Amino acid sequence: MSTEQFRHVTQVGFIVKDIEEARAAWAELLGAEEPPIVETEGWESTHMTFKGKPSKGRAKLAFFRLENLTVELIQPVGGPSTWQDFLDEHGSGIHHIAFNVENLDETLGKFKSMGIGIEQKGDYKGGCYTYLASKSKLGGAVEILHNY
Amino acid sequence: MSTEQFRHVTQVGFIVKDIEEARAAWAELLGAEEPPIVETEGWESTHMTFKGKPSKGRAKLAFFRLENLTVELIQPVGGPSTWQDFLDEHGSGIHHIAFNVENLDETLGKFKSMGIGIEQKGDYKGGCYTYLASKSKLGGAVEILHNY
Repeated sequence: MSTEQFRHVTQVGFIVKDIEEARAAWAELLGAEEPPIVETEGWESTHMTFKGKPSKGRAKLAFFRLENLTVELIQPVGGPSTWQDFLDEHGSGIHHIAFNVENLDETLGKFKSMGIGIEQKGDYKGGCYTYLASKSKLGGAVEILHNY
Repeated sequence: MSTEQFRHVTQVGFIVKDIEEARAAWAELLGAEEPPIVETEGWESTHMTFKGKPSKGRAKLAFFRLENLTVELIQPVGGPSTWQDFLDEHGSGIHHIAFNVENLDETLGKFKSMGIGIEQKGDYKGGCYTYLASKSKLGGAVEILHNY
């Protein structure tokens, strides 16, 4: 498998307690307009699983597009999820970095061979995401994004 | 002040318990050679302050240069520091994102106007770093790097 896809970090995700307050602070720092806040879709659309089980976990999201990556703000809004677990355990904090990958199965196989399993996954319009349980090996969560 | 300098994230910093293990895992994921592990200099060189007081906190560091940013691994190795506090509180995790800035005083003034103070700062060869106490406002620590 090419490892080229791991040469470019596309996103850094922050868990926040109050997405409106965090969005206002980031907009002030960046001198940018406040992006819209969107809520993740329901399970019928996302088919989300968390720790191997279907979950109705949801979150509010806001995205700041910087030059070389996107800052994603995430406020969990109920249901079991890696986002809610992180907030309960740590409060606000940097939750993950993301890579875009072309071949999802090969990528998951690569992580598996490293002893790194799946923490949460789900679909979004045009693609799917997978959070790896990579904290103990890599020092933090890695998300892989795969667009169809 | 130009906010252009906040358009480009130059670094993501991970606190790790064991930098040799984390370095090996990252090298495997990236298909890269293992970079050297370096230890921060002594106080005579860094003039490090943590929460406003001189500190002898040290860390081991390793840097993976990706296409669009650098992944920094940090293992605290004694003395008070934001790194040791983070490890004690959270274990391994993503500690900060970094921006390079040209005008340090204006940048610190900008953060101050947002109610964001300094958590830790110090010198390195050719420049200095400042970790902002930005977790409550921005959702995570921001580091500013200023090269002379």
